[in-house]
Amino acid sequence: MDQLSLSSSEALSEARRGSSPVAHHAVTIEDTFWAPRLQTLRDRTLFHIYEQMEQKGYFVSYKHDWQPEKGRIPFLFWESDITKWLEAASYSLAVHPDPALEALVDKTITFLASFQQPDGYLNIWFTAVEPEKRWTNLRDWHELYCAGHLIEGAVAHFQATGKRTLLDIVCRYADYIDTTFGREEGKRRGYCGHEEIELALIKLYRTTGEARYLNLARYFVEERGQNGPPHYFDSEARARGEDPADFWARSYEYNQSHVPIREQHEVVGHAVRAMYLYSALADLARELDDESWLAVCEGFWRHLSSKRMYITGGIGPSADNEGFTADYDLPNDTAYAETCAAIGLAFWCHRLLQLDTDRRYADVLERVLYNGILSAISLDGKSFFYENPLESRGRHHRQPWFRCACCPPNIARLLASLGQYVYGVNETEIMIHLYLQSTSAIAVGAQQITLRQETAYPWDGAILLNIETQQSTEFALNLRIPGWCNRASVEVNGEEFPLEQNLRKGYVRIARRWQTGDHVALKLDMPIQRIQAHPDIRDDNGYVALQRGPLLYCLEEVDNAVPLHRIRLPEAGKLEHHFDSTLSGGIVVIQGSASVLEVEDWAGELYRATPAKHHPYTLVAIPYYAWDNRQPGEMRVWIPVMSTCS
Amino acid sequence: MDQLSLSSSEALSEARRGSSPVAHHAVTIEDTFWAPRLQTLRDRTLFHIYEQMEQKGYFVSYKHDWQPEKGRIPFLFWESDITKWLEAASYSLAVHPDPALEALVDKTITFLASFQQPDGYLNIWFTAVEPEKRWTNLRDWHELYCAGHLIEGAVAHFQATGKRTLLDIVCRYADYIDTTFGREEGKRRGYCGHEEIELALIKLYRTTGEARYLNLARYFVEERGQNGPPHYFDSEARARGEDPADFWARSYEYNQSHVPIREQHEVVGHAVRAMYLYSALADLARELDDESWLAVCEGFWRHLSSKRMYITGGIGPSADNEGFTADYDLPNDTAYAETCAAIGLAFWCHRLLQLDTDRRYADVLERVLYNGILSAISLDGKSFFYENPLESRGRHHRQPWFRCACCPPNIARLLASLGQYVYGVNETEIMIHLYLQSTSAIAVGAQQITLRQETAYPWDGAILLNIETQQSTEFALNLRIPGWCNRASVEVNGEEFPLEQNLRKGYVRIARRWQTGDHVALKLDMPIQRIQAHPDIRDDNGYVALQRGPLLYCLEEVDNAVPLHRIRLPEAGKLEHHFDSTLSGGIVVIQGSASVLEVEDWAGELYRATPAKHHPYTLVAIPYYAWDNRQPGEMRVWIPVMSTCS
Repeated sequence: MDQLSLSSSEALSEARRGSSPVAHHAVTIEDTFWAPRLQTLRDRTLFHIYEQMEQKGYFVSYKHDWQPEKGRIPFLFWESDITKWLEAASYSLAVHPDPALEALVDKTITFLASFQQPDGYLNIWFTAVEPEKRWTNLRDWHELYCAGHLIEGAVAHFQATGKRTLLDIVCRYADYIDTTFGREEGKRRGYCGHEEIELALIKLYRTTGEARYLNLARYFVEERGQNGPPHYFDSEARARGEDPADFWARSYEYNQSHVPIREQHEVVGHAVRAMYLYSALADLARELDDESWLAVCEGFWRHLSSKRMYITGGIGPSADNEGFTADYDLPNDTAYAETCAAIGLAFWCHRLLQLDTDRRYADVLERVLYNGILSAISLDGKSFFYENPLESRGRHHRQPWFRCACCPPNIARLLASLGQYVYGVNETEIMIHLYLQSTSAIAVGAQQITLRQETAYPWDGAILLNIETQQSTEFALNLRIPGWCNRASVEVNGEEFPLEQNLRKGYVRIARRWQTGDHVALKLDMPIQRIQAHPDIRDDNGYVALQRGPLLYCLEEVDNAVPLHRIRLPEAGKLEHHFDSTLSGGIVVIQGSASVLEVEDWAGELYRATPAKHHPYTLVAIPYYAWDNRQPGEMRVWIPVMSTCS
Repeated sequence: MDQLSLSSSEALSEARRGSSPVAHHAVTIEDTFWAPRLQTLRDRTLFHIYEQMEQKGYFVSYKHDWQPEKGRIPFLFWESDITKWLEAASYSLAVHPDPALEALVDKTITFLASFQQPDGYLNIWFTAVEPEKRWTNLRDWHELYCAGHLIEGAVAHFQATGKRTLLDIVCRYADYIDTTFGREEGKRRGYCGHEEIELALIKLYRTTGEARYLNLARYFVEERGQNGPPHYFDSEARARGEDPADFWARSYEYNQSHVPIREQHEVVGHAVRAMYLYSALADLARELDDESWLAVCEGFWRHLSSKRMYITGGIGPSADNEGFTADYDLPNDTAYAETCAAIGLAFWCHRLLQLDTDRRYADVLERVLYNGILSAISLDGKSFFYENPLESRGRHHRQPWFRCACCPPNIARLLASLGQYVYGVNETEIMIHLYLQSTSAIAVGAQQITLRQETAYPWDGAILLNIETQQSTEFALNLRIPGWCNRASVEVNGEEFPLEQNLRKGYVRIARRWQTGDHVALKLDMPIQRIQAHPDIRDDNGYVALQRGPLLYCLEEVDNAVPLHRIRLPEAGKLEHHFDSTLSGGIVVIQGSASVLEVEDWAGELYRATPAKHHPYTLVAIPYYAWDNRQPGEMRVWIPVMSTCS
């Protein structure tokens, strides 16, 4: 098929098709891209994170008798690093039993459990350090946020092991929270400054079937930003003897509580908080079957994806608020683009995809997964980016740990559960959102299907799907045609399948009776592309970025013998790629005809009327995710376009 | 002459020719560019500044019995605003008697004098507010800096009026400072964190002939950064009970005292401080006839002019330290480029020009005067920029005053003494550094010359010089051929004068016997130029700026109906100019064939492989200095070059 012509507006008019994710443990990843990373995660990253937490005093600083003078001051929300690690470790244990890891998990659960109070309350800081301050600063102190991560950890642990130890503890805590917060007489009408508890409670509801958890999540979402008067955070601040006007972030946009959610139309404030909130909105839309929440999500989605997202899928340009600023404000060298925000975006995309099989969501999921998220972890799995800039003058490097270490365990839990992002399924259809070599067990209706992907994706766009069924079964297979792909073809059992007329919101739908031996060959053209940014992104004016398939490329100093900012890419000119197995675990490298500006004849001048001279240069670009794994140096994604026609 | 081929390196090999400035009161400016501005200065700006100081409590908050609880807290160095205003007012009175202004000047002198102590000490803050803290924090508290501005004010007042009232007071203070600071036993080996006293003492020496002021200036310069150990600012901090490591600016590079001046090779730290220091170095080189100080200046000059200067002549990109960062780090939208730093650069250039008639210095003087300085004052003379960015998203506007109001009186004193920058003179030569319609009385040797410039500069490059002499006189007239000019011609009494072989460091030297009626016609080609920045200035990669003659141009929202960042300038394409007498006091406007990118077909996408569509657009550019005098809006100097060859 030539030049896929599906536009977003057409897509919107089609009916929605929902699906549930196929659990990560049902998807066995067997490729050379992700599988080695997942092994590194299991063998190193999970242990590295635990060791770091031990070394930093996560488990000892918090003795019940902790006193400020007794040494290291724990961080208010260290607990959430522990529980995110627990979640990641549990995902791993679900598919790769490991007694050493399991022992650490059990030890951690015992540690966490030791803090539970008779009333069910369970927070380390507000038990060991400042018990008198329980629930006194929901705005800043992450108390319910920690509860949320504890719940997510418990759910993952229960699903991985079937053990109810932590789940029961957490249910007691959630029950206590339910008696504490709400609109009923005698309850606090508060909600957390950092959203997280909402999506966690919905997970807990899905796991236990207890509707009160869903209702509590709904309460937290619906109460948010109800301005009273007074606004909850205002009264809370006054109760502490503080002037609410002294709130350091100045506006409640920071935590998305400036107005009720349904009155919000722009993606604002702290980016991680926004993503966790929006994920809960998508979950609510699904669990309550309430289209209005989907409409709210759609508004945020359009705003984010059309005005406030980096080409990496990174979001939140500013370090000041760890979040959003103005439309099209996407500076490259000072980009904050926090790892956790990118992960939050993946969470949200995944939930939106469950509501509707629409390529737009999967395209962004893929974009952020292969670029803005994957960049955040080193090849050896032991160091991390907190910020993911698109340009570095040589001083930005991954770190083994951070004072505020939210990102390392977050990327661990995302990667450990990667399999769940690949497929969606409902009674009659399978949706393939991501391509990667794998074997998966998928139940469509009553039938168990084995679906095997053979592909060298993301290095190559040829994907062969092999189907095994217990008996011949009717269902529709929906193959995503990525937005980056301009030319694709599909063959079913060797015969060309008419793609365009079977395209629904970017997925080609193949409905038939399937049986073992059936195979589908999808070919996605994967040329090197010169990508331009929207003209209103000032920081990318006059630049192009190189992309191939889902992978964004960058120039790194170690590969280029000239200062990167002197390189100019002509509008036309040869761009070639080859696979180099020796680099960064094996990557496709791009080489391109370019020019390099000369500085030798500037003779002490900074400005002149004569254009700079230039000479031919062959640039080398590598996938963005792979940068900073060799000699440290400069990096840039956006390359100035050569302005001469010569 | 075609394509002037003088390079800087050739120039350097030639002998130096020094000169003294022709005093500002000897140069009567009669043009339509500067003269109306100077009238606005006299009629409005000087009174506006005085009124602002009165309103803010500059004269009443400082009662001798001032107590913190008694109201407005004065600023530690408000005094220097008063004395800079006094300097400006004195320059004005020297050529335009004004009883109302004179009355304010006298009142101010009485006010200042009232603070002088029996020992000669004179500082308002450390007399009225914290007398116990005299000389306890030279690093931060601007005590000697204020003394310097007091001295400059007194010198200007004496020169304008011949009255010794303030001069005598100031000499007593300077004598006291001389007994307090120095290397002799019993004296403090300190110096000021903010340089200024050094150049002021040299002015005082030149005015009074007292060598001890020159020696004291020399001491302050030579002692600076002598690290002891301990470093003076270290010991001083310890004496206050502070840890020197707590210095907020972290490094003594901030105030150029990290190492002795002769061991410094880079322009670092707070930009105004650096310029005032370097000005003193140039003065020292001259007064001590010490070439080594000129060599130190030359090192700083090369570094600044080849790596750390905006195209406006603005310097010091960072708000953090109000100063310098890294080579080629010249961001446009966040440019600090403080007005006072630009003025300091003009001071320094002017002093370097006195040491050597070298176009490089005059080119930068002209660049900063017409662009980076002139931008800082509104057309109505009553509001000011503190920061002078090269790109604004619409929220940067001139203010009537600032909490730290150093810039308004600084630009007032520069403009009020503008005439002194036009000419240099020595026993046998007149140097013309700047072109502007004017009549000047210049003494060359024993002869009094009247030199009249007829020109519409900076709008036009034709300059007619008329000479009147009392008797025919032999001297050389040196006409600067600006660095921006690629084609120039000279006629003496109607006959072509061979330019290139008479060019010395960018000045064409016409040595002959002159008599009344002689005239020189200089023609400087003044096309619109597309200026490129050095390839290592990342922030200007792929952009051009428009310049015509000495004037840098910018796009302003009020003139352009499309978002400025969507405008693209083709490499070639018509650029036309016309004079518009209705705009901003009359300016030459540039209109140019350009393109504007379209956004209508982006359909919610932020990134795509298809280049943006564009359509023809005629851009309108105005001189940079004139922006923000009409409807507020966006502004940008650097325009992306069109990348297509179509």
